[in-house]
Amino acid sequence: MSDGRFIAIDWGTTNRRAWLIERGQVLAAHRDDRGVRAMASADYPAAIAELRARFGDIRVLAAGMVGSSRGWREAPYVPCPAGAAELAAQLLEVERDVWIVPGVSHLGEGRADVMRGEEVQLIGAVAAGLAPHDGLLVQPGTHSKWAWMQGGRIARFATAMTGELFDLLRRHSILAEMMRETPDPDSDAFALGVARGAAGESLLHALFDVRAGTLLGLRDASAGASLASGLLIGAEIAAHRADMAGGVHLLAEGPLAAAYARAIALSVATAHVVDSEAAFVAGISMIEEMRR
Amino acid sequence: MSDGRFIAIDWGTTNRRAWLIERGQVLAAHRDDRGVRAMASADYPAAIAELRARFGDIRVLAAGMVGSSRGWREAPYVPCPAGAAELAAQLLEVERDVWIVPGVSHLGEGRADVMRGEEVQLIGAVAAGLAPHDGLLVQPGTHSKWAWMQGGRIARFATAMTGELFDLLRRHSILAEMMRETPDPDSDAFALGVARGAAGESLLHALFDVRAGTLLGLRDASAGASLASGLLIGAEIAAHRADMAGGVHLLAEGPLAAAYARAIALSVATAHVVDSEAAFVAGISMIEEMRR
Repeated sequence: MSDGRFIAIDWGTTNRRAWLIERGQVLAAHRDDRGVRAMASADYPAAIAELRARFGDIRVLAAGMVGSSRGWREAPYVPCPAGAAELAAQLLEVERDVWIVPGVSHLGEGRADVMRGEEVQLIGAVAAGLAPHDGLLVQPGTHSKWAWMQGGRIARFATAMTGELFDLLRRHSILAEMMRETPDPDSDAFALGVARGAAGESLLHALFDVRAGTLLGLRDASAGASLASGLLIGAEIAAHRADMAGGVHLLAEGPLAAAYARAIALSVATAHVVDSEAAFVAGISMIEEMRR
Repeated sequence: MSDGRFIAIDWGTTNRRAWLIERGQVLAAHRDDRGVRAMASADYPAAIAELRARFGDIRVLAAGMVGSSRGWREAPYVPCPAGAAELAAQLLEVERDVWIVPGVSHLGEGRADVMRGEEVQLIGAVAAGLAPHDGLLVQPGTHSKWAWMQGGRIARFATAMTGELFDLLRRHSILAEMMRETPDPDSDAFALGVARGAAGESLLHALFDVRAGTLLGLRDASAGASLASGLLIGAEIAAHRADMAGGVHLLAEGPLAAAYARAIALSVATAHVVDSEAAFVAGISMIEEMRR
């Protein structure tokens, strides 16, 4: 019935993106704001029925926060090293031919880490030839993921709360009034922040300078958001300097891609920007193939 | 008329503490929650009149956020190095014999910093013999101050947003559900956090472990607040390790004093806890003497 067609969903906290895919090719796409946060448990079957009415009554593969304790149903975490085969082996069927892709976990160096959704992009970026089989990939965002790939599988990874911290500072902190502008990656304030963050300056101290520097007239208040953004991204880079010499592949679009590409270029390496939608489609197609 | 008596106020964001002082001795004290945040500009004269009705129609010296742009009127910042003489010389009279103590600023190493209120405790701790003329003093809190004293004056200082960041994470972040308990400085989780923070582990990454470690069963969710607190205080200590070998004087009380004393003892040095109220009284008395 399906002709190898299936529906893929990247179901995150705030958004949902869906594609009708056949043999790795996108036939149609849909995007809306029905993220996990906007859904109650009982809403999921109708949301799937609506997508099937649009794309056909075929298999559905969903990845992301939909498989978390805040989503539809909790899918397992597959431990690193994790590739398409390991993910396909642990798919969770939540209703007739609707499958949730597991997350990935990492335990090591006394540290724990988890991801949900990013794993599909990571293995897909390699599968699509957009990133090397062995290399360092970064997905910036609310919770940035730094992933070390080996043989096309996720060997280990580390999450940085960079985006969430920026958002907390901007919305709720004493720095809020200095962070109203949109950060400008081409500004001097951003470059200064990156330099200081990447040099390992204490974030707890450097962030207060966003306020103090304005109060003492070192810079205009409008530079605060760019300085804070640079400090945070710079601190994120500082943690991985040693592994970045060989270049970094960046799964991102728009302003986030611009900010990270510039921060990485300013500090240590070249960033290769990878189309994260193409990576997701390649990754979910590979999981679907492994599944059959 | 005043017999050398005066009213001292430590007027912070959320609280106000007032003392009737004569020749460095406290004759009476008062504390309420009429902090700057609870006051409109027009409320200050009546709040002073009320204290004078209680303590006498005498001179008032007020320090803290009352002198900020969010307070009664903005008092200047005195640049480092700053001692009692420099502060006394810049007192701002806001109404008949009501004086606001200036804040202190530091510009150096491309960095700006400011304080308001802490300066009185710092110089007072030395004046009262509670801390050495040359040494490192710490006032932990929402915005922790690390101050290097030379000859009893504040030579330079650095602010860490430790307390505010803890509060933001606990109230608004994805870690909130793992941070409901009160941090326990005697717990293993706190010690682990301090060790990792003080070793220079990336805060952006380590904080996410508060969540991931619970999800993967490394620790109980009840340990999250202690781990996060340890990580943050440890990171604060990491920034000043090199200067701490000679010991640290800690201006704090209660749980905050306990947490910092333990974190400092665990990582590098001995913390000597100083009575911050006694330090404030000594500091404001010295400013009042210099003023006359």
